[in-house]
Amino acid sequence: MSHNSFGHLFRVTTWGESHGPAIGCVVDGTPPGTKLSEAMIQHFLDERRPGQSRYTTQRQEPDQVRILSGTMPGEAEGELIATGTPIALEIQNVDQRSKDYGDIARRYRPGHADIAYDIKYGIRDYRGGGRSSARETAMRVAAGAIARQIVPGLSVRGALVQIGSIAIDRSRFDWDETRRNPFFCPDAQIAERWAELLDATRKSGSSIGAVVEVVAEGVPAGLGAPLYGKLDADIAANLMSINAVKGVEIGDGFASATLSGEENADEIRMGNDGRPVFLSNHAGGILGGISTGQAVVARFAVKPTSSILTPRRSIDADGHEVDVMTKGRHDPCVGIRAVPIGEAMVACAIADHYLRHRGQTGRI
Amino acid sequence: MSHNSFGHLFRVTTWGESHGPAIGCVVDGTPPGTKLSEAMIQHFLDERRPGQSRYTTQRQEPDQVRILSGTMPGEAEGELIATGTPIALEIQNVDQRSKDYGDIARRYRPGHADIAYDIKYGIRDYRGGGRSSARETAMRVAAGAIARQIVPGLSVRGALVQIGSIAIDRSRFDWDETRRNPFFCPDAQIAERWAELLDATRKSGSSIGAVVEVVAEGVPAGLGAPLYGKLDADIAANLMSINAVKGVEIGDGFASATLSGEENADEIRMGNDGRPVFLSNHAGGILGGISTGQAVVARFAVKPTSSILTPRRSIDADGHEVDVMTKGRHDPCVGIRAVPIGEAMVACAIADHYLRHRGQTGRI
Amino acid sequence: MSHNSFGHLFRVTTWGESHGPAIGCVVDGTPPGTKLSEAMIQHFLDERRPGQSRYTTQRQEPDQVRILSGTMPGEAEGELIATGTPIALEIQNVDQRSKDYGDIARRYRPGHADIAYDIKYGIRDYRGGGRSSARETAMRVAAGAIARQIVPGLSVRGALVQIGSIAIDRSRFDWDETRRNPFFCPDAQIAERWAELLDATRKSGSSIGAVVEVVAEGVPAGLGAPLYGKLDADIAANLMSINAVKGVEIGDGFASATLSGEENADEIRMGNDGRPVFLSNHAGGILGGISTGQAVVARFAVKPTSSILTPRRSIDADGHEVDVMTKGRHDPCVGIRAVPIGEAMVACAIADHYLRHRGQTGRI
Amino acid sequence: MSHNSFGHLFRVTTWGESHGPAIGCVVDGTPPGTKLSEAMIQHFLDERRPGQSRYTTQRQEPDQVRILSGTMPGEAEGELIATGTPIALEIQNVDQRSKDYGDIARRYRPGHADIAYDIKYGIRDYRGGGRSSARETAMRVAAGAIARQIVPGLSVRGALVQIGSIAIDRSRFDWDETRRNPFFCPDAQIAERWAELLDATRKSGSSIGAVVEVVAEGVPAGLGAPLYGKLDADIAANLMSINAVKGVEIGDGFASATLSGEENADEIRMGNDGRPVFLSNHAGGILGGISTGQAVVARFAVKPTSSILTPRRSIDADGHEVDVMTKGRHDPCVGIRAVPIGEAMVACAIADHYLRHRGQTGRI
Repeated sequence: MSHNSFGHLFRVTTWGESHGPAIGCVVDGTPPGTKLSEAMIQHFLDERRPGQSRYTTQRQEPDQVRILSGTMPGEAEGELIATGTPIALEIQNVDQRSKDYGDIARRYRPGHADIAYDIKYGIRDYRGGGRSSARETAMRVAAGAIARQIVPGLSVRGALVQIGSIAIDRSRFDWDETRRNPFFCPDAQIAERWAELLDATRKSGSSIGAVVEVVAEGVPAGLGAPLYGKLDADIAANLMSINAVKGVEIGDGFASATLSGEENADEIRMGNDGRPVFLSNHAGGILGGISTGQAVVARFAVKPTSSILTPRRSIDADGHEVDVMTKGRHDPCVGIRAVPIGEAMVACAIADHYLRHRGQTGRI
Repeated sequence: MSHNSFGHLFRVTTWGESHGPAIGCVVDGTPPGTKLSEAMIQHFLDERRPGQSRYTTQRQEPDQVRILSGTMPGEAEGELIATGTPIALEIQNVDQRSKDYGDIARRYRPGHADIAYDIKYGIRDYRGGGRSSARETAMRVAAGAIARQIVPGLSVRGALVQIGSIAIDRSRFDWDETRRNPFFCPDAQIAERWAELLDATRKSGSSIGAVVEVVAEGVPAGLGAPLYGKLDADIAANLMSINAVKGVEIGDGFASATLSGEENADEIRMGNDGRPVFLSNHAGGILGGISTGQAVVARFAVKPTSSILTPRRSIDADGHEVDVMTKGRHDPCVGIRAVPIGEAMVACAIADHYLRHRGQTGRI
Repeated sequence: MSHNSFGHLFRVTTWGESHGPAIGCVVDGTPPGTKLSEAMIQHFLDERRPGQSRYTTQRQEPDQVRILSGTMPGEAEGELIATGTPIALEIQNVDQRSKDYGDIARRYRPGHADIAYDIKYGIRDYRGGGRSSARETAMRVAAGAIARQIVPGLSVRGALVQIGSIAIDRSRFDWDETRRNPFFCPDAQIAERWAELLDATRKSGSSIGAVVEVVAEGVPAGLGAPLYGKLDADIAANLMSINAVKGVEIGDGFASATLSGEENADEIRMGNDGRPVFLSNHAGGILGGISTGQAVVARFAVKPTSSILTPRRSIDADGHEVDVMTKGRHDPCVGIRAVPIGEAMVACAIADHYLRHRGQTGRI
Repeated sequence: MSHNSFGHLFRVTTWGESHGPAIGCVVDGTPPGTKLSEAMIQHFLDERRPGQSRYTTQRQEPDQVRILSGTMPGEAEGELIATGTPIALEIQNVDQRSKDYGDIARRYRPGHADIAYDIKYGIRDYRGGGRSSARETAMRVAAGAIARQIVPGLSVRGALVQIGSIAIDRSRFDWDETRRNPFFCPDAQIAERWAELLDATRKSGSSIGAVVEVVAEGVPAGLGAPLYGKLDADIAANLMSINAVKGVEIGDGFASATLSGEENADEIRMGNDGRPVFLSNHAGGILGGISTGQAVVARFAVKPTSSILTPRRSIDADGHEVDVMTKGRHDPCVGIRAVPIGEAMVACAIADHYLRHRGQTGRI
């Protein structure tokens, strides 16, 4: 048990606060021989990095990752080979200048975790959000980059499919498009509408929620175990642990409540390669908590950030009633940056279950 | 790590198949001195039991629970006192008669876990659904009954809030009503419409999905821990581990994607008792993974059961293409019976975090 | 985390008190396809059973094990095939008659755990020793029987190598002899001396300590992981968790303190089969926490039971000073019955690490 | 589950190799409000540091610890207050110069873990011992320093009680003396004999084993849980996980095999303060796996290091038979430096069980 770890055979422990000297993580259980590089991990970190468009916070975080343990040099330039011992990753915090946090230190932002931390611990690192800062998610992305290397043939991609009430049109879903706009949006037309929406949101100092979809292809069948080590249960926990996430779905998710048994049943035929072919994927690639070989499809809802310019009623740590507004650099839609984080958390769950399945059954 | 356990300080391990001699669970970590009784556990089991209306399967399961360890007799009649050692609970399976499972043993029901089990394990107990049978959930309900006793003042209630496309009207939500109709429906008018819908569904041999809402009141503030021991992440995993569940929400859940930061912020004032009062509960009682003292609100979507009378295309274990239909006694809407199970899983998560919070902080 | 479980991928949870209706365990993680039978498990249970000679307690415990879940019938008579789901084992307690425990319930036996239970929990099942009864160890033996089936070619044997100050002569060590005397003694001459010693011990109502040695052959090289998942660390924990055990050694153990580096080094040559051959085994088959392919050798010390006829000074639960003596049926040397238990605990650790090694590395 | 972590509520994960850029650990679960300082941690690290006498390796390791997360500044100079979030500790490796490891990289030292790593992983960081280097133990000592702060009134001290065949005389045991000689020896006369022994050992390029004793006072009664979360089982695992340890004892340990029940029983009287007083401590402060309030006494045996100047027969990674000797700076007796490590591992186990006991029972 641990408050700051997830996974079992592929186990990640993160540490660090927004304004401490560094953040980091320990990735334990990487199979020996797994090929890595700092560049490969950096690639995914760069996707998550803020300040890349006017739609994410302008705070500059170089987020240069270093691998401190657990590898030996490989043959190619920059290539590293995992030795099977724990891989420590670390990112220096460049912007730790002391400043006056007076108000933030004592006043609770409505909708933010700071009051919960104070209730739980009686003490809280208020500097830049402390442990609850989105900065921690960089380490999830880094761990996810390693997870991707563990399962042969695995591809995990994410897209933003809804901002506010504007959802994409499934008929225009195009993975390539997600790399062409600043929203990871798979629908070029909707991306334009989001741009307008977020410009308005940003100007008004407001924020807005979103829905992210993650699709994992190449997931071997058989991952996950009944009944409390289900792949979907672990994906749900992993995604729900991301800052600001309030809902998780697998496959048709909440829409499955409206289906009949006939509609929901993913029929099966034999493929030309002698393997089962599912004719639909309402199940999102998971039946009984076990992967079927279909694409694993998960979605999660991200609430709007509580950092807004409009004053809201609240209290301070002494119990005085106050009005709170949050100045400074903000993300109008934190759901955008949640896309690579969601990918990473799904990849980590799959890698963990891949090793667990191999351990218990020896079938892969 | 375990495939069939959940929780950490309050830890539940279940075992058993539908048609073996018995099912059971071991509940480890109950604080010494906790008061229990078989009658109290039985009360919750009886709520889950099938065959109580024409809307659930007519299979008769007396489901008489026995406590086999971990208690000493208390002073009152039937009262038991937990000693702190593991509490083993067991229910005999009364209906284990051998019958011809020929077809079911080899043919995969579309939308059912049996193909996934076969892929994973290469062997499967097909009798009555084996380990994937809903029968296992009886032990979750039993464990939940113990969990309720651990947190002073805790109340966990559930309601069915949607069947198919027919959702309740929030303005008519009445907890008392949930005990007056066979659907745990909090809206008397909607209960009548569901009765019609399910009669039709049953007659056509079909099935339909549903949404369950669980509300926990009296949850102490401070439960849950950043960042991977979040209370909501554990609730999400617990609920997603229930058979047929495809989505989980906390508070506003997926609707929070459509909110602005202003709408989503639960403003805070000081109450007359000198404690913070939240003016709304979009967060569902959890901020940053930590309970705030508000009601914890979770919802989950249950897909329609795959056991339907309409033939669907599938394959058998030998790779032959076949048509499959499921004869026999069915639940047209398994979401109904999921209500007490959902309550139990939320109660277990809260009890576990109650003990964890006490352990780490000593603050309760 | 759990108070009553051990192992990770092969995970055992036991429950039950001496005088409750039954004791049992849940074995989670058995690979699907593993062949079992109740008779095979019973075989090992019968070895541990008391009342088989005048040197162990005369209490009769039929200890008939039942498998309640997790298997399907195999092809041979009585053969069972593990399905990969949890295997529940149970033994009914036949002798639960209520009797007057007045004194035992309130008076603390010096050297016994009852005072510790009362301090910890404030309540204790005093009937027949409750949870601290040696009866629980039957479930360890049963779980060990399953563990033996998991690792191909594994053989785990135990012997009693010392009672009181009388140790065996290594030059006469004969595994076959361990089955010919009631002490699991590998040295026929010493077995005779032990018989005299224990007759005298029994007559005087006293008790005596012992040392058990367990040797596991056929352990694949590579099991165990640095630095806190070491095979020897887990064996140490498993053995130390057995009632009355006060010390654990691997290989030369405490004697290695007296060795020089030259003496301690197990030199290596190449065998005719092209595999490394160690010329000695001071390491007990484990280097750096990882098995080397040599025999794994562990020893553990069992203290004399506190159940003796001589009155000892103690207190009762109310803090009164009293004299305590324990009437009834006793083992003069509980170390004898610890032999099959020690075997089982070593087998469980090896099976768990076998699955873990396969999971992380895929190398077996 | 994790290969590189220990503890449950107080959980430590270490990472790092001897010749990487740094080593470190993450300490998760420190109660909020716990007072720390880098100086306090450094104090214990300095005790473990090599190069402080001619009896330990002359390698200079400044071992300057940094705290990277999980604290806020306290009121006193240098004081830090734990916030309840993970505390990351790190020590830079100053001496990482690349050198020719040719022989060491390929030749297996008899009695060393390098062959086991190669068998397990197929790859190994041979530079300076890699993950199996004693350098990792610095992080155990650092974590132990935090653990000491968690349990009010706890004192954990260690002493070297045997080198080779020369053991201390218990009648001269003096804790103060352990700080006056370079061996942590509590017996001034024996310290002189050890000096001679180790001078000779060092000159001959040999090495020698030792026995360490750790005594924890101020351990609250009630820590530990039946049956697999026993305090002594966790102490045994923690100590056995230290490099080169081959045996662990609690209380009388292996000597208890030679005792009668009468001798072994620690009799109890009532003290003047109305609390139980044990008249002896054969049990080493633990009964049934639960602390009794007496001093917890543990001992462990440390084998001689395999780094010796005398050539020993071995093989290389290609299966060639070779002779191996280890040049360079060596510890003639690694048991000396194991003293503060043993203290730390015992302190960590006690802190973990302190939090677990508080969590389950609320009794402290």
